[in-house]
Amino acid sequence: MTAIDISHIRRAAERLSGRIVLTPLLESAMLNELAGCRLFLKAEPLQKTGSFKIRGALNKILSIPEAERRRGVVAFSSGNHGQAAAAAARMMNCPAVIVMPGDAPAIKIESCRWWGAEVILYDRVKEDREAIGRRIVEERGMTLVPPFDDPEVIAGQGTMGLEIADQMREAGATPDVLLVNCSGGGLASGVVTAVKAAFPETRCYTVEPAGFDKMARSLASGAPSRNERLTGSIMDALMAPAPGHLTLAILRHHRVEGLTVTDEEALVAMGAAFRTLKIVVEPGGAAALAAVLAKKVDLSGKTAVVVCSGGNVDPALYARALMAPSELSVARPLDG
Amino acid sequence: MTAIDISHIRRAAERLSGRIVLTPLLESAMLNELAGCRLFLKAEPLQKTGSFKIRGALNKILSIPEAERRRGVVAFSSGNHGQAAAAAARMMNCPAVIVMPGDAPAIKIESCRWWGAEVILYDRVKEDREAIGRRIVEERGMTLVPPFDDPEVIAGQGTMGLEIADQMREAGATPDVLLVNCSGGGLASGVVTAVKAAFPETRCYTVEPAGFDKMARSLASGAPSRNERLTGSIMDALMAPAPGHLTLAILRHHRVEGLTVTDEEALVAMGAAFRTLKIVVEPGGAAALAAVLAKKVDLSGKTAVVVCSGGNVDPALYARALMAPSELSVARPLDG
Repeated sequence: MTAIDISHIRRAAERLSGRIVLTPLLESAMLNELAGCRLFLKAEPLQKTGSFKIRGALNKILSIPEAERRRGVVAFSSGNHGQAAAAAARMMNCPAVIVMPGDAPAIKIESCRWWGAEVILYDRVKEDREAIGRRIVEERGMTLVPPFDDPEVIAGQGTMGLEIADQMREAGATPDVLLVNCSGGGLASGVVTAVKAAFPETRCYTVEPAGFDKMARSLASGAPSRNERLTGSIMDALMAPAPGHLTLAILRHHRVEGLTVTDEEALVAMGAAFRTLKIVVEPGGAAALAAVLAKKVDLSGKTAVVVCSGGNVDPALYARALMAPSELSVARPLDG
Repeated sequence: MTAIDISHIRRAAERLSGRIVLTPLLESAMLNELAGCRLFLKAEPLQKTGSFKIRGALNKILSIPEAERRRGVVAFSSGNHGQAAAAAARMMNCPAVIVMPGDAPAIKIESCRWWGAEVILYDRVKEDREAIGRRIVEERGMTLVPPFDDPEVIAGQGTMGLEIADQMREAGATPDVLLVNCSGGGLASGVVTAVKAAFPETRCYTVEPAGFDKMARSLASGAPSRNERLTGSIMDALMAPAPGHLTLAILRHHRVEGLTVTDEEALVAMGAAFRTLKIVVEPGGAAALAAVLAKKVDLSGKTAVVVCSGGNVDPALYARALMAPSELSVARPLDG
């Protein structure tokens, strides 16, 4: 037994139907050659707010009883989750408070405000964000939308896995391997649950930044392990300090293993997605593709699915990825 | 009566079914605000070979009787059409010859070879490419795949319009205005035919580079007009010297009008697509979006569809678009 099963994810998919983008599962002959396998990519940068996070945030908000929902929601995040919570709240016409450190980039603060959210800034050194959150929940009767360790959030992210399973069946293909970018594990646990329900034989991997592989270590040892550092990778979307309790249990249940990639490998993957698929992928969103292109696992002769989870990347950093070395136009395409 | 009608396009869609990508029709709240209207974008950079050209090339090849098809096809193009013809021929396992000027970029030559095509280079000054083509057709019994002025090519491109019509119905929206990038007019005439069949009231516009507006002038005067220059815009995909005979007649039949955009406006549109939709759009592919963002036609309170037709852009040029001025994160979203 885990915190969610496929029926939770199906219920989330019903709730989200018509409210989110059914993102395409893309294949490219040139990318297949680079990858050395048949590769399908879930193009989630095309999702509303530019990442998968809207799935979980919106499903969570939709699960709140109407009277409570009207009082609003609160989220802690300076990243994709904060933006998604703000957008989801707007879609449901309820107030949102996003709690961010005072040194968060202005563009991220403005983006949450653009969606109509109230942004509360705190001092990383002097203030306790948990205490700020508790005060908002108590004083305003708002509901917390956690970034990953919540059954409704996990089920929402899992709807991407249902779509992948349907799209693979339509393509007449069976995934031997699934690779998913991993921060706290909400996306990975939801998607793995849905894909394994359709394809029980699929081997699943999480992918994290090298040096920030708390999930890989936790999966290997069975005990939750924390990252030593909180910053130091361009994959800013994958910087959760520790796995979730629910997410780790789900990933262990499905015998998921952990892989890592370097910043340089992520940049190469972003460049490959630009050249072959014409989608904008952020560094953390490109980790799983990077693991394939850097041959972190043997995929020869196999069919693999990677999740490209988001595309919210600073133009200057993206320009660096465009200049990363390309191995394209070197040889003949694979057959088929 | 025009060269094609909706039944030709439906037949093309049946032929292409399962062979091409059903590209998403995307909407972004932030982009709606920038555009000052409700805007839907057909994300064709995600199509196989990175542009819509595979639709027409593949439909043409599929329309050739089996015995002839086995002898192969020939196309003149150093751009998206050449790559699409090479890829389509590979998909159908028939030989392809792509005829290009000897000074075409190495990357484009290699790309056609990557797809398995034979590339024949000619001297722009000393040789006549039409004569080269005639010789190949006669000597090898190959079939010419024209870039735009051919009923099967137009019908193939028109399948994008069928998808747009279906996707608009699914979204519960009616297009008041449709804007399509225009080179020889193959895409525009096909898409307009399909969209007008579903939504007869939609006003349709072609969009061309400023200074290269042969179609706008031809539509206004009724007589085919040529561009004075053959180069001089970053919108390299929109550089056909003159409208097609069939395409001009179709566009006039539907009372299409012509708009133009500058290189700078195209770069701004590419940057907006990067920021809001996370798709890579090439300069010529961004012309219709540029016309909307630069307010070349009054869309206030209206619903518009723009075609983003391709994403094959050089990384260095793309980096320029990333640095183009952005008007994002300035105000509140539109309702809904």
